[in-house]
Amino acid sequence: MRKSAADRFRHLFNRSLLLRHHHHNPPPLSSSLSRPFSSMASDSPFPVTAHNINPKVLKCEYAVRGEVVTLAQNLQKDLQANPGAHPFDEILYCNIGNPQSLGQAPITFFREVLALCDHPTILDKSETQGLFSADAIERAWQIVDQIPGRATGAYSHSQGVKGLRDTIAAGISERDGFPANPDDIFMTDGASPAVHNMMQLLIRSENDGILCPIPQYPLYSASITLHGGNLVPYYLEEATGWGLEIPELKKQLDAAKSKGIHVRALVVINPGNPTGQVLSEENQRDIVEFCKQEGLVLLADEVYQENVYVPEKKFHSFKKVTRSMGYGEDDITLVSFQSVSKGYHGECGKRGGYMEVTGFSTEVREQIYKMASVNLCSNISGQILASLVMSPPKVGDESYESFMAEKGNILASLARRAKTLEDAFNKLEGVTCNRAEGAMYLFPQIRLPGKAIKAAEEANTAPDNFYCKHLLNATGVVVVPGSGFGQVPGTWHFRCTILPQEEKIPAIVTRLTEFHEKFMDEFRD
Amino acid sequence: MRKSAADRFRHLFNRSLLLRHHHHNPPPLSSSLSRPFSSMASDSPFPVTAHNINPKVLKCEYAVRGEVVTLAQNLQKDLQANPGAHPFDEILYCNIGNPQSLGQAPITFFREVLALCDHPTILDKSETQGLFSADAIERAWQIVDQIPGRATGAYSHSQGVKGLRDTIAAGISERDGFPANPDDIFMTDGASPAVHNMMQLLIRSENDGILCPIPQYPLYSASITLHGGNLVPYYLEEATGWGLEIPELKKQLDAAKSKGIHVRALVVINPGNPTGQVLSEENQRDIVEFCKQEGLVLLADEVYQENVYVPEKKFHSFKKVTRSMGYGEDDITLVSFQSVSKGYHGECGKRGGYMEVTGFSTEVREQIYKMASVNLCSNISGQILASLVMSPPKVGDESYESFMAEKGNILASLARRAKTLEDAFNKLEGVTCNRAEGAMYLFPQIRLPGKAIKAAEEANTAPDNFYCKHLLNATGVVVVPGSGFGQVPGTWHFRCTILPQEEKIPAIVTRLTEFHEKFMDEFRD
Repeated sequence: MRKSAADRFRHLFNRSLLLRHHHHNPPPLSSSLSRPFSSMASDSPFPVTAHNINPKVLKCEYAVRGEVVTLAQNLQKDLQANPGAHPFDEILYCNIGNPQSLGQAPITFFREVLALCDHPTILDKSETQGLFSADAIERAWQIVDQIPGRATGAYSHSQGVKGLRDTIAAGISERDGFPANPDDIFMTDGASPAVHNMMQLLIRSENDGILCPIPQYPLYSASITLHGGNLVPYYLEEATGWGLEIPELKKQLDAAKSKGIHVRALVVINPGNPTGQVLSEENQRDIVEFCKQEGLVLLADEVYQENVYVPEKKFHSFKKVTRSMGYGEDDITLVSFQSVSKGYHGECGKRGGYMEVTGFSTEVREQIYKMASVNLCSNISGQILASLVMSPPKVGDESYESFMAEKGNILASLARRAKTLEDAFNKLEGVTCNRAEGAMYLFPQIRLPGKAIKAAEEANTAPDNFYCKHLLNATGVVVVPGSGFGQVPGTWHFRCTILPQEEKIPAIVTRLTEFHEKFMDEFRD
Repeated sequence: MRKSAADRFRHLFNRSLLLRHHHHNPPPLSSSLSRPFSSMASDSPFPVTAHNINPKVLKCEYAVRGEVVTLAQNLQKDLQANPGAHPFDEILYCNIGNPQSLGQAPITFFREVLALCDHPTILDKSETQGLFSADAIERAWQIVDQIPGRATGAYSHSQGVKGLRDTIAAGISERDGFPANPDDIFMTDGASPAVHNMMQLLIRSENDGILCPIPQYPLYSASITLHGGNLVPYYLEEATGWGLEIPELKKQLDAAKSKGIHVRALVVINPGNPTGQVLSEENQRDIVEFCKQEGLVLLADEVYQENVYVPEKKFHSFKKVTRSMGYGEDDITLVSFQSVSKGYHGECGKRGGYMEVTGFSTEVREQIYKMASVNLCSNISGQILASLVMSPPKVGDESYESFMAEKGNILASLARRAKTLEDAFNKLEGVTCNRAEGAMYLFPQIRLPGKAIKAAEEANTAPDNFYCKHLLNATGVVVVPGSGFGQVPGTWHFRCTILPQEEKIPAIVTRLTEFHEKFMDEFRD
């Protein structure tokens, strides 16, 4: 039954989220946007209207900062203007993996090094030794020396400072037990531009498809839409802990091929976003084999590689898995995305990240380099931070123990928060929630009563959106409706981060529980 | 005579730089790339080849980091491995406006504030007062307080931190004498992503055109190509100091229209890149009037607004010009690009910048916001720096005098370097060079002897490329051939930055002069 529902949904999904064949005609706005337009093409004083912009931009959706978040921002303004006007006194942004916005402190060593690299003239002053740890000062010297002319304010090589890429490649080698090449590293402002680059490279037209998990992180759907391609969905099995099954991949690939779609790549998010599962090495081997046989580029979103919370699971990079299978540079085309925004450090605002690009011909690699060159380089602080993340303090360094304590405390707390919220969701009427083995999210399913679904219909919104807006208005907690990520039709979910401060979790659980009981009482059939 | 040559060239230019109608067929590679391909589609072990990637990527060119620079990087490696193997002992990168890579020191106050914001826990320590100026400490407190939750490591609002946008808007108001709205500011990682965003918004297909100056900064041609649009060139008059003439704009607009091209926007770079001219206010008013009458978006690249070197010229923002003409928000659609990479500070590696977006409907603005949201936010250090650039130390601040001295010395030195290099170029046989009134470049014209042109033909390269490669091999000086920017056909130019350290300029002039004499002797007809 699920499969046929999935097929039905895919049809809807393709129509609503990924419109195409509209390159020369404006899309029907009333169906793709919820608000009426005040300035129509004919009477607008502006040369640019919603009717004559790039239709791919109109089609693109990004729920993580979508309608519910806009509502939350308005509520926040209202709270500031009218304290006490709402049944809560703060907005809790659980819509986005943004740890430091919810009070997580940065890793001291990382920030010490960044500050010293920003103002290297203090490196040899005596007061500096009273303010900064010895190994941070030493590391900052090393990094400044790695930058040509010590120019931390210069554009770097288009792929990033060579010395920092050396450090990252060494970190990858140490992680995987297989060598990494600094020339394979392209440093980027967070992982998002890297994903855009790959979509831009691979997508020629709406006849090119990219296999993406459903549910997926909406950067992928947005990016595929903006580049004019076709999102070919494959469904993760909620019943088996968001399992990624090869027969489902094969089925969806064949279905896409039969429609004339040339599938170029497979996106795998591991640990999963929004789903939190951590793939087994065996499963990863099957995925690699599938990509090899089908001639697909494997786009491995591995930004949550440090975020694993259950002892029975371990992160394995796809690079390591391919190499341990005996596959080398010429056997498989693999791009791994990494970011400084996630992990235990959560340095979202620094916009650091990289992609490790393997198994491309020299000619194609030159094209990737050219695309990087057009944007000159990613920001140097982000580059430095990416090198620190891949090469943190080691045993014997002055900062080692405090670093390990900071890291360990954050990860242990995230694991406890994930478990507490998972348990709380599972206690709610009609809610089931898979475990967050990794990443930063829970993606509970809510079985909504018919009356709620009808009320949503009347309010001209999706039932999960309806639920999330009610939740926000009642509790101040911002979550993202499942429809922003994709879900099997007729099922409803939301994504909630595990990031609120630990001491706030009990109160959040109480608020969520009270809200849910009231909501169900109001709408119970 | 020039006009007919220009027409002839535009035809060539459209064919070679801006191919189209190739969406489903691979372009003829041999004509668009100079190297033969080792891995052809049929026998490549890789699923991705130069024959099946996005043809827009293949077509895109970016000469600023193109062939001559790659040659320079190889020479540099060779110099390190074999010192003394070349007739120079360092490579001088005059290909790119990257001041700190050539030894320009950063502005102390800016770096102090950045370092303190990176590691705010030292803000209230006593040693900090010995290392940092009082106003830098105060400013850092202000900035940290402006960031919600003091979380300098969090994603900000998609447009940038509201408090920093307030500062920038106040800076614009002070600069222009007309109000600016912080909600109009979209902060970006340098100006390049902002330009990409606008091209992505405006270009629907190859039937949409963007009017660009020729010569232009190749970010524009690259971005238009990547987004599948049509660069509609208008020619700057070299004989009148790179004058921007309205009849030329009108002529090119009409020609494009007659070919069925829907021209959406006019790009104006002021001060000019690569041409260095500073527009008069009267000229700017005519440009505004032209855009208004023709319903064009005015895309104003104003990243060199601080770089004006001649007393008789002054920078006027297009925002100020439109407002002083009495035009308001509903009368003209204007986007102004600004960057922290240029000016007296030249903080290229920080990737800070913003666009000020005015005269768009609410609906279109929501689309611009959504596009910004997909990439979450620009890096916070770059955001902070952009706020500092638009609000530097003021009279009475502890850093004011040292700041003014640093700024004044850099700008005065740049003016002297521009003049010295201009004079040197004008002394060379067959070379004429307009003044650099602003920006960071000279764009001399070289009249090459027929024998040199023939030799270039035999080497299967453009004559300007031939000259620039010879120059590099003889002197280690890296400049960019004019063909990367566009030039009237049959004329040859190169772009050379004015950025080498002042004490090196005499030696550079000697090397350039000696090389040029030898080159002319070798190829004189």
